[in-house]
Amino acid sequence: MSRATAQAPSNIAFVKYWGARDLKRALPYNPSISMTLANCVSRSTVEVLPDGAPDQVLLGGDSGELSLAPAAFADRVCQHLVTLRAETGTQGGFRVATKNSFPTGAGIASSASGFAALTLAVTAALGLDFSDEELSILARRSGSGSAARSLMGGYVELPTGIVASDGNSETASSEDSLSFSIQLADADHWDLRDVVAIVETGPKEISSLEGHKRSLTSPYYPRRQELLAQRLHVVRQAIAERSFSALGPVLEEEAIDLHLIAMSSRPPVFYWNPATLALLSTVRTLRDEGLPAYSTMDAGANVHVICEPEHEPEIARRLIAVRGVRRIIRDRVGTGPRLDVEPLF
Amino acid sequence: MSRATAQAPSNIAFVKYWGARDLKRALPYNPSISMTLANCVSRSTVEVLPDGAPDQVLLGGDSGELSLAPAAFADRVCQHLVTLRAETGTQGGFRVATKNSFPTGAGIASSASGFAALTLAVTAALGLDFSDEELSILARRSGSGSAARSLMGGYVELPTGIVASDGNSETASSEDSLSFSIQLADADHWDLRDVVAIVETGPKEISSLEGHKRSLTSPYYPRRQELLAQRLHVVRQAIAERSFSALGPVLEEEAIDLHLIAMSSRPPVFYWNPATLALLSTVRTLRDEGLPAYSTMDAGANVHVICEPEHEPEIARRLIAVRGVRRIIRDRVGTGPRLDVEPLF
Repeated sequence: MSRATAQAPSNIAFVKYWGARDLKRALPYNPSISMTLANCVSRSTVEVLPDGAPDQVLLGGDSGELSLAPAAFADRVCQHLVTLRAETGTQGGFRVATKNSFPTGAGIASSASGFAALTLAVTAALGLDFSDEELSILARRSGSGSAARSLMGGYVELPTGIVASDGNSETASSEDSLSFSIQLADADHWDLRDVVAIVETGPKEISSLEGHKRSLTSPYYPRRQELLAQRLHVVRQAIAERSFSALGPVLEEEAIDLHLIAMSSRPPVFYWNPATLALLSTVRTLRDEGLPAYSTMDAGANVHVICEPEHEPEIARRLIAVRGVRRIIRDRVGTGPRLDVEPLF
Repeated sequence: MSRATAQAPSNIAFVKYWGARDLKRALPYNPSISMTLANCVSRSTVEVLPDGAPDQVLLGGDSGELSLAPAAFADRVCQHLVTLRAETGTQGGFRVATKNSFPTGAGIASSASGFAALTLAVTAALGLDFSDEELSILARRSGSGSAARSLMGGYVELPTGIVASDGNSETASSEDSLSFSIQLADADHWDLRDVVAIVETGPKEISSLEGHKRSLTSPYYPRRQELLAQRLHVVRQAIAERSFSALGPVLEEEAIDLHLIAMSSRPPVFYWNPATLALLSTVRTLRDEGLPAYSTMDAGANVHVICEPEHEPEIARRLIAVRGVRRIIRDRVGTGPRLDVEPLF
């Protein structure tokens, strides 16, 4: 049977996707911008099975062994396989194996890299030639907005797909087919680093999905949306001009903002833990000492510290010393997904 | 010479004063509501000196000894003495000694109790008979909005003093003389407790005064003001009906809100430390276990846990076990200031 293997990276958002018009298809209320990572990747091997065969979802182990995936994981993968079958007009089942380069439970979200790799491997196994834009739409329909951005390397924006008619957002129509990723700049354009301080390794108390839902109940959500136009503009420009001093403050502001919305949701959502606060404070101290470093966070307790290459070793050294930090992952901007990788089976 | 001694309590705000139309006179943008405490008090002895004599500011020690107050403390006291001289039409200097019942540097703000006690002692030493309302205006003019609320026992509201003409807030006139405290209910009305978890004992990196100033730069400040009308209504009603289940959630929401405004101010203000977050999480856990407890915070890292009397011992026991907690102060709603206390000299 036809088989393909794809590798796709995770990414770290500079402007966050938080709150959706359509959660199942991850159609966002606002554009998001991220940096694609290099080392935190998922690999996915997909084999097309005969028509009507049941899907099989496996996990790749460290020594090359394969095991059945836990039910919750398998369910989410199967749901995306249903979507991909419908979109590609195929009937076959799929045998899927997935493996992450980063340790499971390391607190690195694997849905972005995982669904990007899965989407790419399925279409490749079917011999279908989709454009990056089309692939990003398919990946987004997994329910992970971040997965859509992981289909491209460098610096990537995912627009909302909303087209305002007559310049009046009240009469805007929202198009699923228009929310696809756009590469703002490739990885060679700007060598930025991401030092990830892992402080929480278990599953979150409140899932991102639930956080997205509740975000709309925050009394500050509409104001955040208003603020984003200017923030997106600054981030796009900072990337274009490789201006770290322009990017940094808005990056940190935006990360805090996501958590302000979470904490003011009803009921409130708290993702930070004590070590998160210690890290945020350490990063401010680093800046006071003249070391340019800015923190950002996804919907979780871990802290990503974005910096320029020359400051990465010192920043990593300082972060590992913070109480509550379990491990440090040093990553950098990456070139995006690949198909020339070793199969898992 | 004429001499008087007054004792006044601290208080914990249920609805926060954060942001001022006039910082020097603590004229607030929104009404605040607090519970006056019983055990955390300041005592102030004031002696009227001959006309033109320089003010003297002393601190009372644990063994009854008096020492010169540090310059920063003395300066703020002297500034208020200048205000009080102008308001009372006197020329005399003052010899002032102050002592707090709670340890200095325990992380309990002493400006509320201190300026309330000072205001009361000065007017008593001058033989002037001001009403509680007038005293609260004088105390507010120290620059501590909280001091105005400490002139009364029980549950106290400090209105803004803004009078809307024609129901149009655009043409509102703001009257310093109309922002005086109102007792919503006396201490006997409702026996609530405040278990204070002290996690920070040093001075804050960013003063409350600076926090107030920056608050107006938060893009969320105007929306917070809109939300407060409903929140004030709920708190007033919960106090009137002694409904802890109605008070608790809005109390916690409001405390988080103050810090959301601080963290979204430009530049941002962070008052929390790792132990603060651990405490907030512990209080949520207590509730999950069926123990009604709600946290609130002033502009600082310490956490006040408000509860009913029967749950106070267990809550205190649980809070002291949280990493980073230096000490627990157990306090309760109090009856307000007193003049029948032992002089410091």
